[in-house]
Amino acid sequence: MILATVTGRVVATQKSDELRGSNLLLVTALGDDLEPVKDRTYVAVDCVGAGVNDHVLVEEYFALHKQQYKAMSIVGIVEKIHQGR
Amino acid sequence: MILATVTGRVVATQKSDELRGSNLLLVTALGDDLEPVKDRTYVAVDCVGAGVNDHVLVEEYFALHKQQYKAMSIVGIVEKIHQGR
Amino acid sequence: MILATVTGRVVATQKSDELRGSNLLLVTALGDDLEPVKDRTYVAVDCVGAGVNDHVLVEEYFALHKQQYKAMSIVGIVEKIHQGR
Amino acid sequence: MILATVTGRVVATQKSDELRGSNLLLVTALGDDLEPVKDRTYVAVDCVGAGVNDHVLVEEYFALHKQQYKAMSIVGIVEKIHQGR
Amino acid sequence: MILATVTGRVVATQKSDELRGSNLLLVTALGDDLEPVKDRTYVAVDCVGAGVNDHVLVEEYFALHKQQYKAMSIVGIVEKIHQGR
Repeated sequence: MILATVTGRVVATQKSDELRGSNLLLVTALGDDLEPVKDRTYVAVDCVGAGVNDHVLVEEYFALHKQQYKAMSIVGIVEKIHQGR
Repeated sequence: MILATVTGRVVATQKSDELRGSNLLLVTALGDDLEPVKDRTYVAVDCVGAGVNDHVLVEEYFALHKQQYKAMSIVGIVEKIHQGR
Repeated sequence: MILATVTGRVVATQKSDELRGSNLLLVTALGDDLEPVKDRTYVAVDCVGAGVNDHVLVEEYFALHKQQYKAMSIVGIVEKIHQGR
Repeated sequence: MILATVTGRVVATQKSDELRGSNLLLVTALGDDLEPVKDRTYVAVDCVGAGVNDHVLVEEYFALHKQQYKAMSIVGIVEKIHQGR
Repeated sequence: MILATVTGRVVATQKSDELRGSNLLLVTALGDDLEPVKDRTYVAVDCVGAGVNDHVLVEEYFALHKQQYKAMSIVGIVEKIHQGR
């Protein structure tokens, strides 16, 4: 998983079945200074009710679940990051 | 998923069975300025009727579905991108 | 797998079901000099009881196991690294 | 999938069972100028009868099929690339 | 798959079940000049009896096999590399 911050959202009416009803958010990977890294922005399905500016955990990889696809997803909202301890 | 723009198409008569009948498009990843990023062009199967210059959602990863391969695919056409909100 | 060092931990109360009860650690990939590499920090589920500053083996990729997701994980604690022999 | 060009071949007598009988080719990813990109060379199993200098479609990712592994593969021979249209 | 060279080995007593009994080798990806590339070293399970300095084929990705994980693995020992032919 990567640490990321929610930086926006995406509207896509025409989409494949596995994305129907999904909330699609822009997420940007965080560097070691916890600032967004240039050109590392992805689109992820929100599974946890995240909002813009939240720090989140993002599964970078696509997977199958019970014979259905699951796209890249936000799987947690980060409350605290303890670095170096 | 990544944001990309459709930048062309590919003709390949000789191909593996899982690609037969697929529409193969060139897609180039978008940077944070929503401009194409150099040397990040892929070939994706179109699942949603996308055309050249459309902004699209692309699943970067290959997967199996019901015991069949599914190649990298365009899974949505993007109508609006809200950055920073 | 990659060699990494544990560089911190993450608290996330709101998270998807597959992460419930998991210990989430920050891990930073090691370069050839066995020093952490800038901006290559991930969040991994600890499977082996690792602690901060431990050298660890990390599976970079997400997978399904017995119809359940398994997130990026720490799968070993490294005791010795023999380079060039 | 990526666009690549076949740049050589590899001989490996001692190999795992899933590769037995495979034709292993060196493939190098193409940049936006359709020239090979430095240090982006892979080894792929040929599924379509490709030869050196052919432009090909390569699935970058490893997958399971009917309980058998399938290694990175050449899945199409490219005849034409239409850029920007 | 990538071409790599075996550059060392790793000792990890405390490890997850799927790695038990595995021989863990350090492998470094080779560039187009067939020299190791800086900071592209991984840990792979040896499936073919490889030794230090051998040129090997490495599956970069993690997969499931018969409901068991299979970590990144060395899947072949390379005897000859024919570039450009």
